[in-house]
Amino acid sequence: MDFLKQMILDKGYIINNNILKVDSFLNHQVDFKLMNEIGLEFYNYFKDKNITKIFTIEASGIAPAIMTSYKFEVPMVILKKQTSSILNDDLYQTEVKSFTKNTTYNLTLSKKYISPNDNILIIDDFLANGEAAKGAIKLIEDAGASVAGIGIVIEKSFQPGRKILEDLGYDIYSLARIKSLENNKIEFVD
Amino acid sequence: MDFLKQMILDKGYIINNNILKVDSFLNHQVDFKLMNEIGLEFYNYFKDKNITKIFTIEASGIAPAIMTSYKFEVPMVILKKQTSSILNDDLYQTEVKSFTKNTTYNLTLSKKYISPNDNILIIDDFLANGEAAKGAIKLIEDAGASVAGIGIVIEKSFQPGRKILEDLGYDIYSLARIKSLENNKIEFVD
Repeated sequence: MDFLKQMILDKGYIINNNILKVDSFLNHQVDFKLMNEIGLEFYNYFKDKNITKIFTIEASGIAPAIMTSYKFEVPMVILKKQTSSILNDDLYQTEVKSFTKNTTYNLTLSKKYISPNDNILIIDDFLANGEAAKGAIKLIEDAGASVAGIGIVIEKSFQPGRKILEDLGYDIYSLARIKSLENNKIEFVD
Repeated sequence: MDFLKQMILDKGYIINNNILKVDSFLNHQVDFKLMNEIGLEFYNYFKDKNITKIFTIEASGIAPAIMTSYKFEVPMVILKKQTSSILNDDLYQTEVKSFTKNTTYNLTLSKKYISPNDNILIIDDFLANGEAAKGAIKLIEDAGASVAGIGIVIEKSFQPGRKILEDLGYDIYSLARIKSLENNKIEFVD
């Protein structure tokens, strides 16, 4: 997605070999035109997959996910990050470790908003180690529903997330794939 | 906004006299059509105010705010809830007490995404005691920028938020105003 790649080159900044900041258009300030283009791009890629719901993880996934939900005309569900584990028959919950932030949270979904007939597209802003996506997949499969695919805005292809998810058989579509941030230079996968 | 009021009557449920759950279309599962209508309604009300940015507070404000941002064709900025106070010259920060959740957080904004020329529309999902909105206003005014108005999806009119903000001189537009949740019945302000 050339529009996104150009924005990353123009406005992203490298913190270190592992961290790219995109605060000016994706995570803190958010570009409305980019969000619309992202929604359209995910729609075009996954439109024949009979998607019934869009799932995302709070908070940075919400803006691209609601635009995708609008294009598909299906509901979005925000998976919540709870600090504590809640024992409750009305919820699905799984522990997720964030390597980037060195924290652990409990990804939480109300049983009311998923059924075994659902075929779900997971949307998130970043794919690094794949832990958040794996958590979302676990909740969906615990409910007996299907994962139709995973749509990622920015993939850090030098980290293992894509390989782990591909090896599990999921269809991952990343709009920008970053090969390297080394030597203070952003390189994309061709 | 009749579409929203009908959805609240059909799908909202009362937890107690103070708490209305709208998990099925606003906070957890999110209705794409409603988000689009909300964006349009805020646009129609505030369109002559020369809005330069939409500000919201993570996480439930993001979906209505990005749709509003898309209608205005201006950037959205997500104010972050930090658990700890950060001393940093690049940030504006203010402490906010959430009466509803009985927690305190530090609302945080990077100085890069605001300038004294900005005229900002604050969008949030709920208005109760007005603490979150007051925090957003403080950050905006600390930066020397202006608050053009406050757009709220659901106002709990039996709590003091609206009065506090009106007394401070702000223009508040709430799409649904709830007069009472007593006797397990949702009543709107006429």
